[in-house]
Amino acid sequence: MSESKKISVLGAGNLGAQIAYRAAFYGHSVTAFDISDDAISAAKERVKKIAGNYVRDLDDVSEDKAKAVVDKIAYTTSLEEAARNADYIIEAVPENLDIKKDTYTKLAEFLPEETILLTNTSTLLPSDFKDATGRTDKFLAYHFANNIHIANVVEVMPTSDTDDSVVEQVMEFAPTMGMRPIRLHREHAKYIINSFYSTWVDQARDMWVLGVADIETLDEVASMLAGTQQLAPFLAQDNTGLGVAYQITKNRAETGDPLAIEFSRRLKEEFIDKGHIGKESGQGFYIYDENGNPTGLSDAAKKKYPPVDPAK
Amino acid sequence: MSESKKISVLGAGNLGAQIAYRAAFYGHSVTAFDISDDAISAAKERVKKIAGNYVRDLDDVSEDKAKAVVDKIAYTTSLEEAARNADYIIEAVPENLDIKKDTYTKLAEFLPEETILLTNTSTLLPSDFKDATGRTDKFLAYHFANNIHIANVVEVMPTSDTDDSVVEQVMEFAPTMGMRPIRLHREHAKYIINSFYSTWVDQARDMWVLGVADIETLDEVASMLAGTQQLAPFLAQDNTGLGVAYQITKNRAETGDPLAIEFSRRLKEEFIDKGHIGKESGQGFYIYDENGNPTGLSDAAKKKYPPVDPAK
Repeated sequence: MSESKKISVLGAGNLGAQIAYRAAFYGHSVTAFDISDDAISAAKERVKKIAGNYVRDLDDVSEDKAKAVVDKIAYTTSLEEAARNADYIIEAVPENLDIKKDTYTKLAEFLPEETILLTNTSTLLPSDFKDATGRTDKFLAYHFANNIHIANVVEVMPTSDTDDSVVEQVMEFAPTMGMRPIRLHREHAKYIINSFYSTWVDQARDMWVLGVADIETLDEVASMLAGTQQLAPFLAQDNTGLGVAYQITKNRAETGDPLAIEFSRRLKEEFIDKGHIGKESGQGFYIYDENGNPTGLSDAAKKKYPPVDPAK
Repeated sequence: MSESKKISVLGAGNLGAQIAYRAAFYGHSVTAFDISDDAISAAKERVKKIAGNYVRDLDDVSEDKAKAVVDKIAYTTSLEEAARNADYIIEAVPENLDIKKDTYTKLAEFLPEETILLTNTSTLLPSDFKDATGRTDKFLAYHFANNIHIANVVEVMPTSDTDDSVVEQVMEFAPTMGMRPIRLHREHAKYIINSFYSTWVDQARDMWVLGVADIETLDEVASMLAGTQQLAPFLAQDNTGLGVAYQITKNRAETGDPLAIEFSRRLKEEFIDKGHIGKESGQGFYIYDENGNPTGLSDAAKKKYPPVDPAK
């Protein structure tokens, strides 16, 4: 196999733990950094669960193989140790500008000259914190989707300062950790996947809130249009989790969009507050049986709400 | 089979001819109306071609069966004749408010009391011409997609004046002409399908014009996300035809959107003016072989254009 690299992942939360596991699964030497021993313990639990997902979801991944990978990941609460000899740093700390800037500023003291910095940031613009890295030519976005082992694409997105040769190097690196790289030429806040996906789902949210059509109709038409159920917008939100959907629509609501305001209100009051947060909880827009299959709409999804007047 | 209805289709252009053929195929008594003998001749040619498409694309449609349907359609340039005894009128005249109002106003003189009026309008709001019908309770949208025999869904969209029982009747009528009805509860300018589809494709157009990613990348990511190639935005535009794409983006350009302005400029100058109008012409964003399969990007699609600065 190709040369094993030294990769440090900063932030071992949901995505960070998946990134660390993926790189280790493909034979790289991985250190996962987080801010406290408690955070490390939580990360270790996540990693075990991820290993189980590999066995469950992928062909030819035995329990032994998956577990061997678990044992290969090193953990640290020291940025200095994370930085030592790192070929690549993949940053997945919380989506907070101060936290990101602070992390990179501290990291800069310890970094070898050649280390390439990759951020998984999803809601912040890399250019907004690139200066904290001290090496904008070697810094770019490397953005994953959830369930990396299934959606194994990574969006490679440079800023205007990123060196072309660095981008090319990262494009060649991605397959060595089992990722299909998607090449963006310039910064785009929502990347490619979310530009398509979030606008698609927002159309559905708006049509539901406007009272144009029922949830079942919207999911059926979307599925027919795409040719698969993958883009059924309400099924998809249940899959991703309604907490995530709430965060996203709350951001849109904060711009004053009345349709987003009403959608996030319904999500919170009719679903989330009642513990119905999607497939994982057994209920969201749909009700799920013990095998995780949707058996019908939930009452909150079937309910007739007073429609919102269109903004225009 | 269910009771054969008397259906008159007003306007036997691309969609009108398909609608007439479909209704006749399913055993209804169909009259197609258009404004002149020349228009009728053109309609007859279209209908012949549509019959060929049924044979080509559907299982169990023999040439004899398809041709027998062709012979069943009656034609007229008289609105009075079209109106006579009609159970349903399906209106597919040009997307021009004056033409629609004029058609309905003239029609109203001749219509039996019980006739239900259905409009296929796609860019105009039915409410903007409903008063010309003189029977807003019996008027609603009945909106098809292109290639009806393949995309056999019809969006059933009432105005605020449409009687519920009429909507229900139309929902029951649709399957008798081989259409799956989609129920909208209120008017929505883009209906459901185009709300999803046009925003999806607009995302791709914008990302191309912004220089965020190449056409191949955008089509690949979209296909991966949807799970099929059905929603590959540039392939899809080639399928529908770049003339249509140009009309659509020109409308958006007229609102002053700089990305739409640049996209429609490229479409016109780099594609359409050179005769490259999509799959039908053998070339659009992709080049097509004699079997209609894409063999690679066209030069105009591969060209590096100066990117447009984002509007914000």
